[in-house]
Amino acid sequence: MALYFEDFQPGAKLESPGVTVTEAHVVAFAGLTGDFNPLHLDEERARRTIFGGRIAHGLLTLSLAAGLLAPNIYGSAIALLEASARFLRPVRIGDTIRAIAEVLDKRPSEKYAGGVVRLRHEVRNQRGEVVAVAETKILVAKRP
Amino acid sequence: MALYFEDFQPGAKLESPGVTVTEAHVVAFAGLTGDFNPLHLDEERARRTIFGGRIAHGLLTLSLAAGLLAPNIYGSAIALLEASARFLRPVRIGDTIRAIAEVLDKRPSEKYAGGVVRLRHEVRNQRGEVVAVAETKILVAKRP
Amino acid sequence: MALYFEDFQPGAKLESPGVTVTEAHVVAFAGLTGDFNPLHLDEERARRTIFGGRIAHGLLTLSLAAGLLAPNIYGSAIALLEASARFLRPVRIGDTIRAIAEVLDKRPSEKYAGGVVRLRHEVRNQRGEVVAVAETKILVAKRP
Amino acid sequence: MALYFEDFQPGAKLESPGVTVTEAHVVAFAGLTGDFNPLHLDEERARRTIFGGRIAHGLLTLSLAAGLLAPNIYGSAIALLEASARFLRPVRIGDTIRAIAEVLDKRPSEKYAGGVVRLRHEVRNQRGEVVAVAETKILVAKRP
Amino acid sequence: MALYFEDFQPGAKLESPGVTVTEAHVVAFAGLTGDFNPLHLDEERARRTIFGGRIAHGLLTLSLAAGLLAPNIYGSAIALLEASARFLRPVRIGDTIRAIAEVLDKRPSEKYAGGVVRLRHEVRNQRGEVVAVAETKILVAKRP
Amino acid sequence: MALYFEDFQPGAKLESPGVTVTEAHVVAFAGLTGDFNPLHLDEERARRTIFGGRIAHGLLTLSLAAGLLAPNIYGSAIALLEASARFLRPVRIGDTIRAIAEVLDKRPSEKYAGGVVRLRHEVRNQRGEVVAVAETKILVAKRP
Repeated sequence: MALYFEDFQPGAKLESPGVTVTEAHVVAFAGLTGDFNPLHLDEERARRTIFGGRIAHGLLTLSLAAGLLAPNIYGSAIALLEASARFLRPVRIGDTIRAIAEVLDKRPSEKYAGGVVRLRHEVRNQRGEVVAVAETKILVAKRP
Repeated sequence: MALYFEDFQPGAKLESPGVTVTEAHVVAFAGLTGDFNPLHLDEERARRTIFGGRIAHGLLTLSLAAGLLAPNIYGSAIALLEASARFLRPVRIGDTIRAIAEVLDKRPSEKYAGGVVRLRHEVRNQRGEVVAVAETKILVAKRP
Repeated sequence: MALYFEDFQPGAKLESPGVTVTEAHVVAFAGLTGDFNPLHLDEERARRTIFGGRIAHGLLTLSLAAGLLAPNIYGSAIALLEASARFLRPVRIGDTIRAIAEVLDKRPSEKYAGGVVRLRHEVRNQRGEVVAVAETKILVAKRP
Repeated sequence: MALYFEDFQPGAKLESPGVTVTEAHVVAFAGLTGDFNPLHLDEERARRTIFGGRIAHGLLTLSLAAGLLAPNIYGSAIALLEASARFLRPVRIGDTIRAIAEVLDKRPSEKYAGGVVRLRHEVRNQRGEVVAVAETKILVAKRP
Repeated sequence: MALYFEDFQPGAKLESPGVTVTEAHVVAFAGLTGDFNPLHLDEERARRTIFGGRIAHGLLTLSLAAGLLAPNIYGSAIALLEASARFLRPVRIGDTIRAIAEVLDKRPSEKYAGGVVRLRHEVRNQRGEVVAVAETKILVAKRP
Repeated sequence: MALYFEDFQPGAKLESPGVTVTEAHVVAFAGLTGDFNPLHLDEERARRTIFGGRIAHGLLTLSLAAGLLAPNIYGSAIALLEASARFLRPVRIGDTIRAIAEVLDKRPSEKYAGGVVRLRHEVRNQRGEVVAVAETKILVAKRP
């Protein structure tokens, strides 16, 4: 059920399943990347920041936003070329986020038998607030 | 030993320790984010792609590039505001990467008793090749 | 202290230690297997199901039921041949489960210097309710 | 893109993406379930078994077979009712497996606004050999 | 910013960032080491012990105490020679711990172009109580 | 099958199952504890050390030595009081280790309806070389 280059229509939207961001996610992401910033791992200290408690790493939010949509391009994605994100609101432990991606545009590439698709991702929490906006540029194959 | 807003001088550089990207990293990142793309997890299929084998997720590379430098701002970082990356070469399982961040500029913020620092990250592999370039914008506190 | 083929007596019972099933277990199992079903990972959505909240994957329950008893056959188990389970009640995050296995029967196998043992597992929660029943067929070595 | 009760047609087939079963999977599954059997974790000892080296836990194979197909029923699955498996060949570290599920039959359930679907899973390795056959019985919602 | 042999002055102190010890830490440590003692993993049973609930493994506390200070010797540490600890108070799930290490003494080693440094670690919780004291003996390189 | 205070006889020995220490163990231990020392995670750099490649964290070796023996005291252990270790040889990725614990002595404690048992652990690799020796002091309950 993967989407190929032909299937991406500018303006079309994809919605990911939601995921509740837990301590387990934050501890695992810290451990994987080495980022043990007290903002994310030390509840005592995080309580005294502007956020009032531990928050998820921004790059975990971005990674979830991209990852939860990945089943749409299993087998058709050739490579991720670019990614960028602005983090607008904290994602706290216990928040549930989901990503909505909109196809911005696409450009065929003869060399790779596919083309470049640009997506704009909105990541929303359980209250519908946009916690991050992101943009990815992926190289996607044509239907075989 | 954290760096505060005052300590960031445009042009200064920070270098992270290196890390060998293993199957364990890629499997863990897939599991954390939900991105089980065969490019990253299916050696049989990945062998037939332009990369000739499994590669690390681009966002894992970005997350490592940021995470390995994070000890420099433990306690001083207030928030990650923005991040962007271009992925230039594949990171294969067994490659060793490190990040070199250069301070691009900084801008004080009265509101947060600190300011915004922009960093440019280069991620290099064991052959010195640049595998990704990234930019992050972080809010950093002034020295207390 | 492993049990060998000779040690399994039809009707005898083995009881596992208990384990509290946490978010960490469910997130890790999702990540390992790729099953990010909102039933297990999205608290907002799970709240509106018949279960009223996130539940553990059935196969996590089965895997724990078998795994927690595994120390009994370290070194004597040759292979797991079959496993089956019926899931009778939800295992919620925070529930504590344990497995009680009863030896159903056994059959020697000359070829493998051991034999096939059939076990019936009951998985119970902290209220004593049976949450799953399972059956496993294992090939176990004779005492060396 | 989830499949609802109406979408399951007896005889229809679903194919999962493939996954290379790594040390990381086996170590994580052992850690999650408590099954540290030397068959799976001790290469020295496993080398002297009939398999000639460490093998994946059978229940990991079953869990992957079910998990990799799970995106097909995100949001539509109500519960997993039953699962059973026979393990026919070892899955070694480095093997790549995928699951092919065939709809056996289905039966509507008024009570749950959906019905019960029975699937037969074949798990194949990179040589096309069937390493396990499984059957699952899931409760799936009707299209909303 | 690593500390080399020359930088260690008897009496000097190093303080680690804090970390909130979560279920995710305890479940991961159990899984990594095989220690599924109900003290750590079974809330129902742990509730009836002298601790009144699950506690972290002592060796997890020791490992965190050493690990959180490790960035100070990235690249300069040659080897950990010895470690010892006494566990004085339980670390409960949700407690936040940090380590303060004091340089006890040091002794140059010609053979390794560095020397042996002895550190005494105090691990404190969020109430300032000492939960463990430890001593480590590390081989550290001279400044290159 | 747990051992109670009465069961520990000075001079008696317990042997753990073996475990092959993999990249997955080392990466997970680094992530759990925050110790990303290049000795353990950066193959390029580790190759130029006295060990000639990445080695496991000493505290991972100690934790495995204690953890693999833990099933012997499930339910009977009241607390770990002390632990100490000397690390004699590197444990490399791919090495298989096991622990042999000898009861040194024991001392009843009226207060805890049990007593203190002192164990001496030898950790050996696949060549039978002692890679670490450790001592633990545990509080164990009397048989109920």
